Amino acid sequence: MSVLTKEQLSELLHKSRYHRFLQIELTDVSDNELTFRLPFHEQFLADEAETYIHGGIIASLIDIAGDFALARMVGKPLPTIDMRIDYLRAAGKEDLYARATVVKAGRTLGISDVVVTNPEGKQIAVGRALYSTANA
Amino acid sequence: MSVLTKEQLSELLHKSRYHRFLQIELTDVSDNELTFRLPFHEQFLADEAETYIHGGIIASLIDIAGDFALARMVGKPLPTIDMRIDYLRAAGKEDLYARATVVKAGRTLGISDVVVTNPEGKQIAVGRALYSTANA
Amino acid sequence: MSVLTKEQLSELLHKSRYHRFLQIELTDVSDNELTFRLPFHEQFLADEAETYIHGGIIASLIDIAGDFALARMVGKPLPTIDMRIDYLRAAGKEDLYARATVVKAGRTLGISDVVVTNPEGKQIAVGRALYSTANA
Amino acid sequence: MSVLTKEQLSELLHKSRYHRFLQIELTDVSDNELTFRLPFHEQFLADEAETYIHGGIIASLIDIAGDFALARMVGKPLPTIDMRIDYLRAAGKEDLYARATVVKAGRTLGISDVVVTNPEGKQIAVGRALYSTANA
Repeated sequence: MSVLTKEQLSELLHKSRYHRFLQIELTDVSDNELTFRLPFHEQFLADEAETYIHGGIIASLIDIAGDFALARMVGKPLPTIDMRIDYLRAAGKEDLYARATVVKAGRTLGISDVVVTNPEGKQIAVGRALYSTANA
Repeated sequence: MSVLTKEQLSELLHKSRYHRFLQIELTDVSDNELTFRLPFHEQFLADEAETYIHGGIIASLIDIAGDFALARMVGKPLPTIDMRIDYLRAAGKEDLYARATVVKAGRTLGISDVVVTNPEGKQIAVGRALYSTANA
Repeated sequence: MSVLTKEQLSELLHKSRYHRFLQIELTDVSDNELTFRLPFHEQFLADEAETYIHGGIIASLIDIAGDFALARMVGKPLPTIDMRIDYLRAAGKEDLYARATVVKAGRTLGISDVVVTNPEGKQIAVGRALYSTANA
Repeated sequence: MSVLTKEQLSELLHKSRYHRFLQIELTDVSDNELTFRLPFHEQFLADEAETYIHGGIIASLIDIAGDFALARMVGKPLPTIDMRIDYLRAAGKEDLYARATVVKAGRTLGISDVVVTNPEGKQIAVGRALYSTANA
Protein backbone atom coordinates (compact mmCIF):
# COMPACT_ATOMS: atom_id res chain seq x y z
CA MET A 1 0.00 0.00 0.00
CA SER A 2 3.04 2.24 0.24
CA VAL A 3 4.75 3.37 -2.92
CA LEU A 4 6.93 6.14 -1.50
CA THR A 5 9.27 5.96 1.51
CA LYS A 6 9.51 8.62 4.20
CA GLU A 7 12.68 9.94 2.57
CA GLN A 8 11.04 10.20 -0.84
CA LEU A 9 8.00 11.95 0.65
CA SER A 10 10.21 14.42 2.55
CA GLU A 11 12.11 15.20 -0.63
CA LEU A 12 8.87 15.76 -2.54
CA LEU A 13 7.51 17.91 0.29
CA HIS A 14 10.37 20.38 -0.02
CA LYS A 15 10.13 20.83 -3.78
CA SER A 16 7.31 23.34 -3.31
CA ARG A 17 8.13 27.01 -2.72
CA TYR A 18 5.11 27.42 -0.49
CA HIS A 19 6.02 24.34 1.57
CA ARG A 20 9.50 25.81 2.07
CA PHE A 21 7.93 29.09 3.22
CA LEU A 22 5.88 27.11 5.74
CA GLN A 23 8.92 25.01 6.73
CA ILE A 24 6.62 22.06 7.11
CA GLU A 25 8.31 18.76 7.98
CA LEU A 26 7.24 15.14 7.71
CA THR A 27 8.04 13.70 11.10
CA ASP A 28 6.58 10.23 11.12
CA VAL A 29 5.25 7.58 8.79
CA SER A 30 3.38 4.65 10.27
CA ASP A 31 1.17 2.01 8.75
CA ASN A 32 -1.86 4.18 8.35
CA GLU A 33 -0.78 7.66 9.20
CA LEU A 34 1.60 10.43 8.24
CA THR A 35 2.55 13.03 10.85
CA PHE A 36 3.73 16.54 10.00
CA ARG A 37 5.12 19.35 12.11
CA LEU A 38 4.59 23.00 11.27
CA PRO A 39 7.10 25.04 13.29
CA PHE A 40 5.64 28.29 14.55
CA HIS A 41 6.60 31.40 12.62
CA GLU A 42 5.51 34.99 13.31
CA GLN A 43 4.34 35.43 9.73
CA PHE A 44 1.55 32.95 10.48
CA LEU A 45 -0.10 35.28 12.99
CA ALA A 46 -3.67 36.28 12.30
CA ASP A 47 -4.58 39.10 14.64
CA GLU A 48 -3.34 42.53 15.56
CA ALA A 49 -2.53 41.39 19.09
CA GLU A 50 -0.45 38.59 17.55
CA THR A 51 -1.88 35.84 19.70
CA TYR A 52 -3.07 33.17 17.29
CA ILE A 53 -2.26 31.44 14.00
CA HIS A 54 -4.29 32.25 10.89
CA GLY A 55 -6.89 29.78 9.70
CA GLY A 56 -5.41 29.93 6.21
CA ILE A 57 -2.16 28.49 7.56
CA ILE A 58 -4.07 25.67 9.23
CA ALA A 59 -5.99 25.07 5.99
CA SER A 60 -2.67 24.85 4.15
CA LEU A 61 -1.33 22.33 6.67
CA ILE A 62 -4.46 20.19 6.28
CA ASP A 63 -4.36 20.33 2.48
CA ILE A 64 -0.69 19.28 2.39
CA ALA A 65 -0.99 16.53 5.01
CA GLY A 66 -4.04 15.01 3.33
CA ASP A 67 -2.38 15.18 -0.06
CA PHE A 68 0.79 13.44 1.08
CA ALA A 69 -1.12 10.64 2.81
CA LEU A 70 -2.45 9.77 -0.65
CA ALA A 71 0.82 10.64 -2.43
CA ARG A 72 2.47 7.94 -0.35
CA MET A 73 0.13 5.36 -1.87
CA VAL A 74 -0.11 6.60 -5.46
CA GLY A 75 3.41 7.93 -5.98
CA LYS A 76 3.00 11.69 -6.33
CA PRO A 77 1.14 14.70 -4.94
CA LEU A 78 -2.39 15.10 -6.26
CA PRO A 79 -4.68 17.99 -7.21
CA THR A 80 -7.11 18.90 -4.43
CA ILE A 81 -10.74 18.82 -5.60
CA ASP A 82 -12.41 20.07 -2.45
CA MET A 83 -11.79 20.42 1.25
CA ARG A 84 -13.74 20.95 4.46
CA ILE A 85 -12.12 22.31 7.56
CA ASP A 86 -13.59 22.60 11.05
CA TYR A 87 -11.75 24.88 13.43
CA LEU A 88 -12.06 23.62 17.01
CA ARG A 89 -9.80 25.90 19.06
CA ALA A 90 -7.47 28.84 18.38
CA ALA A 91 -3.80 27.91 17.89
CA GLY A 92 -1.43 30.06 19.92
CA LYS A 93 2.20 30.89 19.19
CA GLU A 94 3.14 27.25 19.04
CA ASP A 95 4.12 24.47 16.67
CA LEU A 96 1.30 22.53 15.10
CA TYR A 97 1.10 18.84 14.30
CA ALA A 98 -1.03 17.20 11.62
CA ARG A 99 -1.87 13.51 11.44
CA ALA A 100 -3.29 12.39 8.10
CA THR A 101 -5.03 9.13 7.29
CA VAL A 102 -6.50 7.84 4.04
CA VAL A 103 -10.27 7.30 4.02
CA LYS A 104 -10.44 6.16 0.41
CA ALA A 105 -7.86 5.60 -2.30
CA GLY A 106 -9.82 4.89 -5.46
CA ARG A 107 -8.91 4.76 -9.13
CA THR A 108 -10.01 8.35 -9.77
CA LEU A 109 -10.69 9.85 -6.32
CA GLY A 110 -9.05 9.75 -2.91
CA ILE A 111 -10.14 11.13 0.46
CA SER A 112 -7.99 11.95 3.47
CA ASP A 113 -8.80 12.91 7.05
CA VAL A 114 -6.47 15.21 8.95
CA VAL A 115 -6.36 16.10 12.65
CA VAL A 116 -4.33 19.15 13.72
CA THR A 117 -3.12 19.34 17.30
CA ASN A 118 -0.94 21.65 19.37
CA PRO A 119 2.08 20.55 21.46
CA GLU A 120 -0.22 19.73 24.41
CA GLY A 121 -2.17 17.36 22.19
CA LYS A 122 -5.30 19.52 22.08
CA GLN A 123 -7.23 19.38 18.83
CA ILE A 124 -6.99 22.62 16.85
CA ALA A 125 -8.84 21.61 13.70
CA VAL A 126 -10.06 18.65 11.66
CA GLY A 127 -10.14 18.50 7.89
CA ARG A 128 -11.42 16.20 5.18
CA ALA A 129 -10.29 16.63 1.60
CA LEU A 130 -10.93 15.02 -1.77
CA TYR A 131 -8.10 14.61 -4.28
CA SER A 132 -7.92 13.50 -7.89
CA THR A 133 -6.03 10.22 -8.24
CA ALA A 134 -7.01 9.95 -11.92
CA ASN A 135 -3.64 10.42 -13.60
CA ALA A 136 -1.39 9.36 -10.77
CA MET B 1 -26.21 47.07 6.84
CA SER B 2 -22.68 48.46 6.65
CA VAL B 3 -20.87 49.30 9.87
CA LEU B 4 -17.34 49.69 8.53
CA THR B 5 -16.20 51.80 5.57
CA LYS B 6 -13.78 50.62 2.90
CA GLU B 7 -11.01 52.60 4.61
CA GLN B 8 -11.72 51.02 7.98
CA LEU B 9 -11.82 47.54 6.46
CA SER B 10 -8.51 48.14 4.64
CA GLU B 11 -6.90 49.30 7.84
CA LEU B 12 -8.18 46.23 9.70
CA LEU B 13 -7.02 43.98 6.87
CA HIS B 14 -3.42 45.09 7.25
CA LYS B 15 -3.24 44.61 11.01
CA SER B 16 -2.58 40.89 10.53
CA ARG B 17 0.97 39.65 9.98
CA TYR B 18 -0.23 36.89 7.68
CA HIS B 19 -2.32 39.32 5.62
CA ARG B 20 0.76 41.48 5.21
CA PHE B 21 2.75 38.43 4.06
CA LEU B 22 0.03 37.76 1.49
CA GLN B 23 -0.12 41.47 0.53
CA ILE B 24 -3.85 41.08 0.07
CA GLU B 25 -5.73 44.28 -0.79
CA LEU B 26 -9.38 45.29 -0.57
CA THR B 27 -10.11 46.78 -4.00
CA ASP B 28 -13.83 47.36 -4.05
CA VAL B 29 -16.83 47.61 -1.78
CA SER B 30 -20.28 47.58 -3.32
CA ASP B 31 -23.71 47.11 -1.85
CA ASN B 32 -23.48 43.37 -1.49
CA GLU B 33 -19.95 42.47 -2.29
CA LEU B 34 -16.35 42.98 -1.25
CA THR B 35 -13.59 42.46 -3.82
CA PHE B 36 -10.01 41.59 -2.92
CA ARG B 37 -6.85 41.30 -4.96
CA LEU B 38 -4.05 38.90 -4.11
CA PRO B 39 -0.97 39.95 -6.07
CA PHE B 40 1.05 37.00 -7.32
CA HIS B 41 4.15 36.14 -5.33
CA GLU B 42 6.64 33.33 -6.02
CA GLN B 43 6.33 32.06 -2.44
CA PHE B 44 2.77 31.03 -3.26
CA LEU B 45 3.91 28.43 -5.79
CA ALA B 46 2.85 24.85 -5.16
CA ASP B 47 4.79 22.62 -7.50
CA GLU B 48 8.39 21.85 -8.35
CA ALA B 49 7.90 23.18 -11.90
CA GLU B 50 6.61 26.42 -10.33
CA THR B 51 3.56 26.70 -12.53
CA TYR B 52 0.60 27.06 -10.17
CA ILE B 53 -0.47 28.64 -6.88
CA HIS B 54 -0.91 26.45 -3.79
CA GLY B 55 -4.41 25.54 -2.68
CA GLY B 56 -3.56 26.69 0.84
CA ILE B 57 -3.03 30.22 -0.47
CA ILE B 58 -6.41 30.11 -2.20
CA ALA B 59 -8.00 28.77 1.00
CA SER B 60 -6.45 31.70 2.90
CA LEU B 61 -7.83 34.18 0.38
CA ILE B 62 -11.31 32.67 0.70
CA ASP B 63 -11.21 32.63 4.49
CA ILE B 64 -10.16 36.30 4.63
CA ALA B 65 -12.61 37.54 1.99
CA GLY B 66 -15.54 35.75 3.59
CA ASP B 67 -14.58 37.00 7.02
CA PHE B 68 -14.35 40.64 5.93
CA ALA B 69 -17.70 40.53 4.13
CA LEU B 70 -19.20 39.82 7.55
CA ALA B 71 -16.78 42.13 9.41
CA ARG B 72 -18.15 44.97 7.32
CA MET B 73 -21.60 44.32 8.77
CA VAL B 74 -20.74 43.43 12.36
CA GLY B 75 -17.77 45.72 12.96
CA LYS B 76 -14.81 43.36 13.35
CA PRO B 77 -13.21 40.20 11.96
CA LEU B 78 -14.76 36.99 13.22
CA PRO B 79 -13.54 33.52 14.16
CA THR B 80 -14.01 30.99 11.35
CA ILE B 81 -15.99 27.95 12.46
CA ASP B 82 -15.77 25.90 9.29
CA MET B 83 -15.09 26.28 5.61
CA ARG B 84 -15.62 24.37 2.37
CA ILE B 85 -13.53 25.05 -0.69
CA ASP B 86 -14.02 23.68 -4.20
CA TYR B 87 -11.07 24.06 -6.52
CA LEU B 88 -12.23 24.50 -10.12
CA ARG B 89 -9.08 25.22 -12.11
CA ALA B 90 -5.35 25.64 -11.37
CA ALA B 91 -4.23 29.25 -10.82
CA GLY B 92 -1.10 30.13 -12.80
CA LYS B 93 1.52 32.76 -11.99
CA GLU B 94 -1.09 35.49 -11.86
CA ASP B 95 -2.94 37.78 -9.51
CA LEU B 96 -6.12 36.39 -8.00
CA TYR B 97 -9.37 38.17 -7.23
CA ALA B 98 -11.94 37.20 -4.61
CA ARG B 99 -15.52 38.45 -4.47
CA ALA B 100 -17.28 37.80 -1.19
CA THR B 101 -20.99 38.05 -0.42
CA VAL B 102 -22.91 37.45 2.79
CA VAL B 103 -25.37 34.53 2.73
CA LYS B 104 -26.49 34.97 6.32
CA ALA B 105 -25.64 37.41 9.08
CA GLY B 106 -27.36 36.11 12.20
CA ARG B 107 -27.05 36.91 15.87
CA THR B 108 -24.59 34.07 16.53
CA LEU B 109 -23.61 32.73 13.10
CA GLY B 110 -22.75 34.20 9.71
CA ILE B 111 -22.11 32.56 6.33
CA SER B 112 -20.21 34.01 3.37
CA ASP B 113 -19.78 32.85 -0.21
CA VAL B 114 -16.56 33.62 -2.05
CA VAL B 115 -15.68 33.27 -5.74
CA VAL B 116 -12.01 33.39 -6.74
CA THR B 117 -11.13 34.35 -10.32
CA ASN B 118 -7.98 35.00 -12.32
CA PRO B 119 -7.29 38.17 -14.36
CA GLU B 120 -9.15 36.68 -17.36
CA GLY B 121 -12.22 36.26 -15.20
CA LYS B 122 -12.06 32.45 -15.12
CA GLN B 123 -13.24 30.85 -11.91
CA ILE B 124 -10.40 29.33 -9.89
CA ALA B 125 -12.30 28.27 -6.77
CA VAL B 126 -15.48 28.78 -4.79
CA GLY B 127 -15.72 28.77 -1.02
CA ARG B 128 -18.40 28.88 1.64
CA ALA B 129 -17.51 29.55 5.25
CA LEU B 130 -19.25 29.84 8.59
CA TYR B 131 -18.15 32.41 11.15
CA SER B 132 -19.08 33.13 14.74
CA THR B 133 -20.86 36.47 15.09
CA ALA B 134 -21.65 35.76 18.75
CA ASN B 135 -19.50 38.35 20.48
CA ALA B 136 -19.16 40.85 17.67
CA MET C 1 -25.81 23.52 -23.15
CA SER C 2 -29.11 21.71 -22.64
CA VAL C 3 -29.36 18.09 -23.65
CA LEU C 4 -32.62 17.21 -21.91
CA THR C 5 -35.93 19.08 -22.09
CA LYS C 6 -38.13 19.87 -19.11
CA GLU C 7 -40.41 16.97 -20.09
CA GLN C 8 -37.52 14.53 -20.28
CA LEU C 9 -36.17 15.70 -16.94
CA SER C 10 -39.60 15.36 -15.30
CA GLU C 11 -39.95 11.86 -16.64
CA LEU C 12 -36.49 10.93 -15.33
CA LEU C 13 -37.29 12.51 -11.98
CA HIS C 14 -40.23 10.21 -11.41
CA LYS C 15 -38.40 7.00 -12.24
CA SER C 16 -36.96 6.88 -8.72
CA ARG C 17 -38.96 5.27 -5.89
CA TYR C 18 -37.59 7.75 -3.39
CA HIS C 19 -38.44 10.72 -5.60
CA ARG C 20 -41.99 9.40 -5.86
CA PHE C 21 -42.16 9.10 -2.07
CA LEU C 22 -41.05 12.73 -1.84
CA GLN C 23 -43.48 13.74 -4.61
CA ILE C 24 -40.88 16.22 -5.82
CA GLU C 25 -41.79 18.12 -9.00
CA LEU C 26 -39.75 20.04 -11.55
CA THR C 27 -41.61 23.32 -11.92
CA ASP C 28 -39.39 25.52 -14.04
CA VAL C 29 -36.43 25.36 -16.39
CA SER C 30 -34.74 28.58 -17.38
CA ASP C 31 -31.43 29.28 -19.03
CA ASN C 32 -29.30 28.70 -15.99
CA GLU C 33 -31.60 27.34 -13.37
CA LEU C 34 -33.91 24.47 -12.54
CA THR C 35 -36.67 25.00 -9.97
CA PHE C 36 -38.25 22.19 -7.97
CA ARG C 37 -41.20 22.07 -5.61
CA LEU C 38 -41.39 19.69 -2.67
CA PRO C 39 -45.00 19.59 -1.48
CA PHE C 40 -45.30 19.38 2.29
CA HIS C 41 -46.07 15.94 3.70
CA GLU C 42 -46.50 15.00 7.36
CA GLN C 43 -43.96 12.18 7.03
CA PHE C 44 -41.27 14.84 6.59
CA LEU C 45 -41.73 16.18 10.11
CA ALA C 46 -38.68 16.11 12.35
CA ASP C 47 -39.83 16.85 15.88
CA GLU C 48 -42.26 15.50 18.41
CA ALA C 49 -44.26 18.74 18.33
CA GLU C 50 -44.51 18.31 14.54
CA THR C 51 -43.54 21.87 13.71
CA TYR C 52 -40.63 21.59 11.28
CA ILE C 53 -39.30 19.55 8.36
CA HIS C 54 -36.38 17.17 8.87
CA GLY C 55 -32.93 18.21 7.66
CA GLY C 56 -32.58 14.87 5.88
CA ILE C 57 -35.54 15.78 3.67
CA ILE C 58 -33.92 19.11 2.84
CA ALA C 59 -30.62 17.34 2.12
CA SER C 60 -32.50 15.01 -0.23
CA LEU C 61 -34.09 17.95 -2.04
CA ILE C 62 -30.68 19.60 -2.46
CA ASP C 63 -29.02 16.43 -3.71
CA ILE C 64 -31.76 15.84 -6.30
CA ALA C 65 -31.96 19.45 -7.51
CA GLY C 66 -28.19 19.74 -7.91
CA ASP C 67 -28.04 16.42 -9.69
CA PHE C 68 -30.74 17.32 -12.20
CA ALA C 69 -29.16 20.69 -13.00
CA LEU C 70 -26.18 18.70 -14.28
CA ALA C 71 -28.33 15.89 -15.72
CA ARG C 72 -29.94 18.47 -17.96
CA MET C 73 -26.56 19.21 -19.50
CA VAL C 74 -25.03 15.75 -19.61
CA GLY C 75 -28.11 13.66 -20.36
CA LYS C 76 -28.64 11.57 -17.23
CA PRO C 77 -28.59 11.69 -13.41
CA LEU C 78 -25.12 11.40 -11.91
CA PRO C 79 -23.58 9.80 -8.81
CA THR C 80 -23.08 12.29 -5.97
CA ILE C 81 -19.49 12.38 -4.75
CA ASP C 82 -19.90 14.79 -1.86
CA MET C 83 -22.25 17.47 -0.59
CA ARG C 84 -22.24 20.36 1.88
CA ILE C 85 -25.45 21.72 3.30
CA ASP C 86 -25.90 24.84 5.42
CA TYR C 87 -29.22 25.10 7.24
CA LEU C 88 -30.29 28.73 7.59
CA ARG C 89 -33.78 28.61 9.10
CA ALA C 90 -36.23 25.91 10.17
CA ALA C 91 -38.83 24.95 7.54
CA GLY C 92 -42.38 24.87 8.87
CA LYS C 93 -45.31 22.80 7.62
CA GLU C 94 -45.01 24.27 4.16
CA ASP C 95 -43.95 23.47 0.62
CA LEU C 96 -40.29 23.98 -0.18
CA TYR C 97 -38.70 25.25 -3.38
CA ALA C 98 -35.20 24.50 -4.64
CA ARG C 99 -33.38 26.47 -7.32
CA ALA C 100 -30.30 24.73 -8.72
CA THR C 101 -27.55 26.21 -10.87
CA VAL C 102 -24.44 24.62 -12.33
CA VAL C 103 -21.12 25.96 -11.00
CA LYS C 104 -18.97 23.65 -13.12
CA ALA C 105 -19.71 20.99 -15.72
CA GLY C 106 -16.38 19.34 -16.48
CA ARG C 107 -15.42 16.17 -18.27
CA THR C 108 -15.19 14.13 -15.07
CA LEU C 109 -16.65 16.35 -12.34
CA GLY C 110 -19.59 18.72 -11.98
CA ILE C 111 -20.64 21.07 -9.18
CA SER C 112 -24.08 22.50 -8.48
CA ASP C 113 -25.33 25.15 -6.10
CA VAL C 114 -28.82 24.88 -4.65
CA VAL C 115 -30.89 27.40 -2.68
CA VAL C 116 -33.96 26.15 -0.78
CA THR C 117 -36.70 28.64 0.05
CA ASN C 118 -40.14 28.53 1.62
CA PRO C 119 -43.34 29.94 0.04
CA GLU C 120 -42.57 33.40 1.47
CA GLY C 121 -39.22 33.35 -0.32
CA LYS C 122 -37.16 33.05 2.87
CA GLN C 123 -33.99 31.01 2.53
CA ILE C 124 -34.18 27.69 4.37
CA ALA C 125 -30.86 26.15 3.31
CA VAL C 126 -28.07 26.34 0.77
CA GLY C 127 -26.17 23.37 -0.63
CA ARG C 128 -23.20 22.70 -2.84
CA ALA C 129 -22.58 19.25 -4.25
CA LEU C 130 -20.03 17.50 -6.42
CA TYR C 131 -21.12 14.86 -8.94
CA SER C 132 -19.27 12.45 -11.20
CA THR C 133 -19.79 13.30 -14.87
CA ALA C 134 -17.18 10.72 -15.91
CA ASN C 135 -19.35 8.16 -17.68
CA ALA C 136 -22.23 10.37 -18.64
CA MET D 1 -20.30 12.55 29.76
CA SER D 2 -23.55 10.69 29.20
CA VAL D 3 -26.80 12.36 30.14
CA LEU D 4 -29.24 10.06 28.36
CA THR D 5 -29.42 6.27 28.49
CA LYS D 6 -29.87 4.03 25.48
CA GLU D 7 -33.54 3.62 26.39
CA GLN D 8 -34.08 7.37 26.61
CA LEU D 9 -32.31 7.94 23.31
CA SER D 10 -34.38 5.21 21.61
CA GLU D 11 -37.56 6.76 22.91
CA LEU D 12 -36.51 10.20 21.65
CA LEU D 13 -35.53 8.72 18.29
CA HIS D 14 -39.03 7.45 17.66
CA LYS D 15 -40.80 10.70 18.47
CA SER D 16 -40.09 12.00 14.97
CA ARG D 17 -42.46 11.19 12.09
CA TYR D 18 -39.58 11.06 9.64
CA HIS D 19 -37.55 8.75 11.87
CA ARG D 20 -40.56 6.43 12.05
CA PHE D 21 -40.84 6.50 8.25
CA LEU D 22 -37.15 5.52 8.07
CA GLN D 23 -37.64 2.88 10.83
CA ILE D 24 -34.19 3.75 12.10
CA GLU D 25 -33.10 1.95 15.29
CA LEU D 26 -30.44 2.65 17.88
CA THR D 27 -28.64 -0.68 18.25
CA ASP D 28 -25.65 0.02 20.42
CA VAL D 29 -24.27 2.58 22.84
CA SER D 30 -20.66 2.32 23.88
CA ASP D 31 -18.32 4.73 25.60
CA ASN D 32 -17.62 6.86 22.58
CA GLU D 33 -19.99 5.67 19.93
CA LEU D 34 -23.62 5.24 19.04
CA THR D 35 -24.58 2.64 16.43
CA PHE D 36 -27.77 2.81 14.36
CA ARG D 37 -29.39 0.39 11.95
CA LEU D 38 -31.45 1.53 8.98
CA PRO D 39 -33.42 -1.47 7.72
CA PHE D 40 -33.70 -1.57 3.95
CA HIS D 41 -36.99 -0.40 2.48
CA GLU D 42 -37.97 -0.22 -1.20
CA GLN D 43 -39.01 3.43 -0.84
CA PHE D 44 -35.34 4.29 -0.32
CA LEU D 45 -34.38 3.24 -3.84
CA ALA D 46 -32.80 5.88 -6.03
CA ASP D 47 -32.69 4.55 -9.56
CA GLU D 48 -35.10 3.23 -12.16
CA ALA D 49 -33.41 -0.19 -12.09
CA GLU D 50 -33.95 -0.21 -8.30
CA THR D 51 -30.44 -1.27 -7.42
CA TYR D 52 -29.19 1.30 -4.94
CA ILE D 53 -30.27 3.49 -2.00
CA HIS D 54 -30.72 7.23 -2.50
CA GLY D 55 -28.04 9.61 -1.23
CA GLY D 56 -30.72 11.63 0.53
CA ILE D 57 -31.55 8.62 2.71
CA ILE D 58 -27.88 8.21 3.59
CA ALA D 59 -27.65 11.95 4.35
CA SER D 60 -30.66 11.56 6.66
CA LEU D 61 -29.04 8.64 8.46
CA ILE D 62 -25.83 10.65 8.97
CA ASP D 63 -27.69 13.72 10.21
CA ILE D 64 -29.67 11.69 12.75
CA ALA D 65 -26.74 9.59 13.98
CA GLY D 66 -24.50 12.65 14.45
CA ASP D 67 -27.27 14.51 16.22
CA PHE D 68 -27.99 11.72 18.68
CA ALA D 69 -24.31 11.26 19.54
CA LEU D 70 -24.44 14.82 20.85
CA ALA D 71 -27.99 14.48 22.23
CA ARG D 72 -26.69 11.72 24.48
CA MET D 73 -24.29 14.20 26.06
CA VAL D 74 -26.42 17.33 26.18
CA GLY D 75 -29.83 15.83 26.85
CA LYS D 76 -31.84 16.48 23.68
CA PRO D 77 -31.64 16.50 19.88
CA LEU D 78 -30.02 19.61 18.42
CA PRO D 79 -30.51 21.79 15.35
CA THR D 80 -28.09 20.93 12.53
CA ILE D 81 -26.08 23.94 11.38
CA ASP D 82 -24.21 22.34 8.50
CA MET D 83 -23.16 18.95 7.23
CA ARG D 84 -20.67 17.45 4.79
CA ILE D 85 -21.18 14.02 3.32
CA ASP D 86 -18.74 12.01 1.22
CA TYR D 87 -20.25 9.08 -0.66
CA LEU D 88 -17.72 6.26 -0.99
CA ARG D 89 -19.65 3.40 -2.57
CA ALA D 90 -23.22 2.73 -3.71
CA ALA D 91 -25.46 1.02 -1.14
CA GLY D 92 -27.38 -1.93 -2.54
CA LYS D 93 -30.71 -3.35 -1.35
CA GLU D 94 -29.36 -3.89 2.13
CA ASP D 95 -29.54 -2.60 5.67
CA LEU D 96 -27.19 0.21 6.55
CA TYR D 97 -25.33 0.86 9.78
CA ALA D 98 -24.12 4.21 11.11
CA ARG D 99 -21.52 4.68 13.84
CA ALA D 100 -21.40 8.18 15.29
CA THR D 101 -18.72 9.73 17.49
CA VAL D 102 -18.46 13.18 19.01
CA VAL D 103 -15.54 15.31 17.75
CA LYS D 104 -16.40 18.33 19.88
CA ALA D 105 -19.09 19.10 22.44
CA GLY D 106 -18.76 22.79 23.23
CA ARG D 107 -20.97 25.24 25.01
CA THR D 108 -22.52 26.57 21.79
CA LEU D 109 -21.36 24.17 19.06
CA GLY D 110 -20.90 20.43 18.67
CA ILE D 111 -19.40 18.32 15.88
CA SER D 112 -20.01 14.66 15.13
CA ASP D 113 -18.38 12.22 12.75
CA VAL D 114 -20.43 9.41 11.24
CA VAL D 115 -19.35 6.34 9.26
CA VAL D 116 -22.00 4.43 7.29
CA THR D 117 -21.33 0.80 6.44
CA ASN D 118 -23.21 -2.05 4.79
CA PRO D 119 -23.75 -5.52 6.32
CA GLU D 120 -20.37 -6.69 4.94
CA GLY D 121 -18.67 -3.85 6.80
CA LYS D 122 -17.79 -1.91 3.64
CA GLN D 123 -17.83 1.86 4.03
CA ILE D 124 -20.72 3.49 2.16
CA ALA D 125 -20.28 7.09 3.25
CA VAL D 126 -18.69 9.33 5.86
CA GLY D 127 -20.23 12.49 7.26
CA ARG D 128 -19.27 15.35 9.51
CA ALA D 129 -21.89 17.69 10.90
CA LEU D 130 -22.06 20.75 13.10
CA TYR D 131 -24.92 21.21 15.58
CA SER D 132 -26.03 24.02 17.84
CA THR D 133 -25.65 23.11 21.50
CA ALA D 134 -26.47 26.67 22.56
CA ASN D 135 -29.82 26.19 24.27
CA ALA D 136 -29.52 22.55 25.18
